[in-house]
Amino acid sequence: MLRTHTCGELRIDDLNKKVTLSGWVQRIRDKGALIWIDLRDRYGITQVFLEEGKSDESLVKQVRELGREFVIQVEGNVIERASKNPNIPTGDIEVVPYRIEILNTSKIPPFTIEDETDGGEELRMKYRYLDLRRKPVRTKLELRHRLALETRKYLDSQQFIEIETPVLIKSTPEGARDYVVPSRMSPGQFYALPQSPQTFKQLLMVSGYDRYYQIVKCFRDEDLRADRQPEFTQIDCEMSFVDQDDVLQAFEGMTRHLFKVVKDVEVGDFPRISYQDAMKYYGSDKPDIRFEMKFVELNDVAQGKGFKVFDNAELVVGICAKGCASYSRKDLDKLTDFLKKPQVGAKGLVYVKINEDGSLKSSVDKFYSEEDLKEWAEKCNAKAGDLLLILAGETDATRFAMNELRLEMGKRLNLRDRSVFKPLWVVDFPLLEWDEETQRYYAMHHPFTSPKTEDLNKLEDEPGSVRANAYDLVINGVEIGGGSIRIHNKDLQKKMFKVLGFTGEEAQNQFGFLMNAFEYGAPPHGGIALGFDRLVALFGGSDSIRDYIAFPKNNAGRDVMIDSPSVVSEEQLEELGLKIVNPKSQASS
Amino acid sequence: MLRTHTCGELRIDDLNKKVTLSGWVQRIRDKGALIWIDLRDRYGITQVFLEEGKSDESLVKQVRELGREFVIQVEGNVIERASKNPNIPTGDIEVVPYRIEILNTSKIPPFTIEDETDGGEELRMKYRYLDLRRKPVRTKLELRHRLALETRKYLDSQQFIEIETPVLIKSTPEGARDYVVPSRMSPGQFYALPQSPQTFKQLLMVSGYDRYYQIVKCFRDEDLRADRQPEFTQIDCEMSFVDQDDVLQAFEGMTRHLFKVVKDVEVGDFPRISYQDAMKYYGSDKPDIRFEMKFVELNDVAQGKGFKVFDNAELVVGICAKGCASYSRKDLDKLTDFLKKPQVGAKGLVYVKINEDGSLKSSVDKFYSEEDLKEWAEKCNAKAGDLLLILAGETDATRFAMNELRLEMGKRLNLRDRSVFKPLWVVDFPLLEWDEETQRYYAMHHPFTSPKTEDLNKLEDEPGSVRANAYDLVINGVEIGGGSIRIHNKDLQKKMFKVLGFTGEEAQNQFGFLMNAFEYGAPPHGGIALGFDRLVALFGGSDSIRDYIAFPKNNAGRDVMIDSPSVVSEEQLEELGLKIVNPKSQASS
Repeated sequence: MLRTHTCGELRIDDLNKKVTLSGWVQRIRDKGALIWIDLRDRYGITQVFLEEGKSDESLVKQVRELGREFVIQVEGNVIERASKNPNIPTGDIEVVPYRIEILNTSKIPPFTIEDETDGGEELRMKYRYLDLRRKPVRTKLELRHRLALETRKYLDSQQFIEIETPVLIKSTPEGARDYVVPSRMSPGQFYALPQSPQTFKQLLMVSGYDRYYQIVKCFRDEDLRADRQPEFTQIDCEMSFVDQDDVLQAFEGMTRHLFKVVKDVEVGDFPRISYQDAMKYYGSDKPDIRFEMKFVELNDVAQGKGFKVFDNAELVVGICAKGCASYSRKDLDKLTDFLKKPQVGAKGLVYVKINEDGSLKSSVDKFYSEEDLKEWAEKCNAKAGDLLLILAGETDATRFAMNELRLEMGKRLNLRDRSVFKPLWVVDFPLLEWDEETQRYYAMHHPFTSPKTEDLNKLEDEPGSVRANAYDLVINGVEIGGGSIRIHNKDLQKKMFKVLGFTGEEAQNQFGFLMNAFEYGAPPHGGIALGFDRLVALFGGSDSIRDYIAFPKNNAGRDVMIDSPSVVSEEQLEELGLKIVNPKSQASS
Repeated sequence: MLRTHTCGELRIDDLNKKVTLSGWVQRIRDKGALIWIDLRDRYGITQVFLEEGKSDESLVKQVRELGREFVIQVEGNVIERASKNPNIPTGDIEVVPYRIEILNTSKIPPFTIEDETDGGEELRMKYRYLDLRRKPVRTKLELRHRLALETRKYLDSQQFIEIETPVLIKSTPEGARDYVVPSRMSPGQFYALPQSPQTFKQLLMVSGYDRYYQIVKCFRDEDLRADRQPEFTQIDCEMSFVDQDDVLQAFEGMTRHLFKVVKDVEVGDFPRISYQDAMKYYGSDKPDIRFEMKFVELNDVAQGKGFKVFDNAELVVGICAKGCASYSRKDLDKLTDFLKKPQVGAKGLVYVKINEDGSLKSSVDKFYSEEDLKEWAEKCNAKAGDLLLILAGETDATRFAMNELRLEMGKRLNLRDRSVFKPLWVVDFPLLEWDEETQRYYAMHHPFTSPKTEDLNKLEDEPGSVRANAYDLVINGVEIGGGSIRIHNKDLQKKMFKVLGFTGEEAQNQFGFLMNAFEYGAPPHGGIALGFDRLVALFGGSDSIRDYIAFPKNNAGRDVMIDSPSVVSEEQLEELGLKIVNPKSQASS
């Protein structure tokens, strides 16, 4: 080893030891007679100290030629610092060198390797290998490692077995777009990269492996929105001989365990809320329940008084912003502007201030008496000093906008504390969603999700109202995972494919192997998949998953560091039996 | 849960408990008055017992309609068996049911779900989900899970951090053929699937993560030989501030730990042998050292006596087969036939029997005196009762054939015991190998492998004789892993690319990001990659990796279960800007 100790290891107990350290030159402070080097590695920083006159002259000369990020090996003695630094674990000591070897030089990095760097996103991504040297980035990857290992240890302790499913699989048109991989041995044919190991984990249940998991890369060729990656990592799980409650219990247990061992945070039992209630009270299937501010529907008290906006609305809905009665006109105008942004899409905002003196002031005083407004305030449980914010219109759009407003108010009121974690289960999702464009139903979760037994009779006549044994794990307003109890009966699965508009042939062609497998004794089963990148980001207190991926791709799906994707040789294409054509316009069918 | 206990759980202590089990009907024995069902799940088999007259009549009727592999739920009481089965952990008890529910039916499986099945390879692969139900297969996947988890726990305990590297990377022409992935967002461009995370792990060393590992899928589009898979799994590792000995110590420690915790086998210190000696004494860079039978070179004692075959040979080499002097002519003819197979390619075999009475008998008595033969025997340390087997010819080919002969003799003499594990390090590999066809040197390991310092001066004039800081971990004649100390100096790396015939532009184009990274303070580093599939197979006592992969592909790279690769839709190709052309003949350049 080119070191006896790491740069994070030496303490006051190590005084007078002869040590060898290796690392990067973080900083050199040269005060003429006295020179300090901050030597850095993954484990910390150790100060190296030279004194002109006392230290060897050639050594001082050598040190004066060092640059930032040079890799050096230092042999020296551990001494007590004259002025200690209580902020770092090695702050009591320093190393006085008697030999320094330059292991490698460095050009001046394009940005500073500090906790707060001067490098912009693009530059840091191009030189990601330098960005990764920064402590905040390293901490994130260490957290990721810790979380993955603890997940594995926990699931192992619960009899789950990790089984690797294949990466080169088969393309299916259902769901998002697949990445495909041309086969050289079967020219004209393709593998596909898995969007998830869904069918394989169900096959494993048919095989009797009743508790499966895998931390696994998945792939989706989608137009990338912010914070989507073409490749991402899932904690993928499946269980047999379970009902929905068993799955929720199992992964509530896992999540609680991870919070405890990784963050030392106790999260209690997870509340459960139906999809319907989530939409009604939060306008979102991933409510942030770190704060209340639930929706209150006001149709019965707000309609029929001549205010057309409300009278013509499908939904009139309000939230109570505690202590915001003091909002100025300017504050309220800002909120209105926020709501009118195209991404939010509300037409306007109605407010009612419940002043400290008990008087009420609203933007609709013309239409409503103080008695009316008091009734609203009561329904919303608003007290003196509070502010009611009310939206009205078509139900879905109004809920959508109100959700945005609620989250915005939560942010303004500092109710979305990153150190607080509030998980919940959203259950009873609809089985299907109607697509106007293609005029057909799509599986909301996926085609293998089982309908609720009590809704089975509606599957053919009212498919839209059938609820599924499907659930999402939501933490702090982020969808961390989702799953369902699957269909294990081949006849029901066939019926489901029919509802989804598959011909028998299409179903057989795409999922034949799964349907065949179901002929041979499939057990009742269900599972869940958690977005690992998101889970880590949440644990790290960040919204962006990209920071928690060692080598992420940008929003155009490019790795700007290695410059990929890129062209390949003619020979490669020829071997694959492929030719590049000018991509046709997207309008062509 | 649809069960209170698993089928492997109940013991004599559970007598009189009311239990619910769920599982598959492994077998029904119906002796008229008495009926037994073997109920199976992942954890074991529990016997369910019914007695006509005593058990409910409808229950008996129901049981008589069950078929093999039906999935049933059984509620019943645990009783002591009249005749116990000491061969299974649940053999003391049985369950007398009062309710049975058929959770799913099953068609009759195409082969028996037994330890010894009647299904052929092809059928089992097509119905892999049924094959996976068989205990010997399940045991293999459980071993794989155990080995992966213990590897992670051990490396974590040694400060290694698991970092996920990307799967969608960039194609490089060096080495084996890449699988490529067309990009829809950048039409005409491609990602490649990694053959290994080599460059990324080196970048992580530049980033200062001085102990990295990953259990990771890798991909190689090669013409598949037996037991090669297009996707395979590696334990991939890299360390900084180390020399070769540090890496060997670290992974010797890991391997020893895995043998201990997973197999309870103590393997001592690993011997180290140079590549040169491995070739000289075993004719192989992956010697099986569970048995001796080392090569003995006989040129000096066998040449110059008029036997042209030996006189004209570059190498005359023998091995001593202990106790084989009694081999008959027929035995020896069989060995000769074995040696003459095209895969072995020897011209013929010379033998010397050292008879029990001390007399010698050889196939070359015409040319050599008994004194001559005695000298050979002495050199080979052959005693009365032993058999010398001698081959001669061009050095490489003769060593190759002799290696095959040695392994064959080891097998015949039962010296290759699957329960014995003998790891060793093969070190000092040549840096380069010459390719006659393309008339250039190729990196034997890869282009980032560092030459031995003492051989550096030969890099330009005698590149073929330069040794590398490269090593293989070999266990029982199987190459389990390989690695090297890398080049961390950009000038040396440039020189290396030059020796490999890269133009500066080519090197920059393919490895530019790595060479750039090396400008910013790359530490000395090195690593290793272990073939995880092979390691598991070795631990399991098998030669075939396929059995240890849940969903393997066949020798044509096909997954016959899901029928992949397969055609994709015209729309998909259009979006990718690709067209399928008739693959040209392989003769075209």
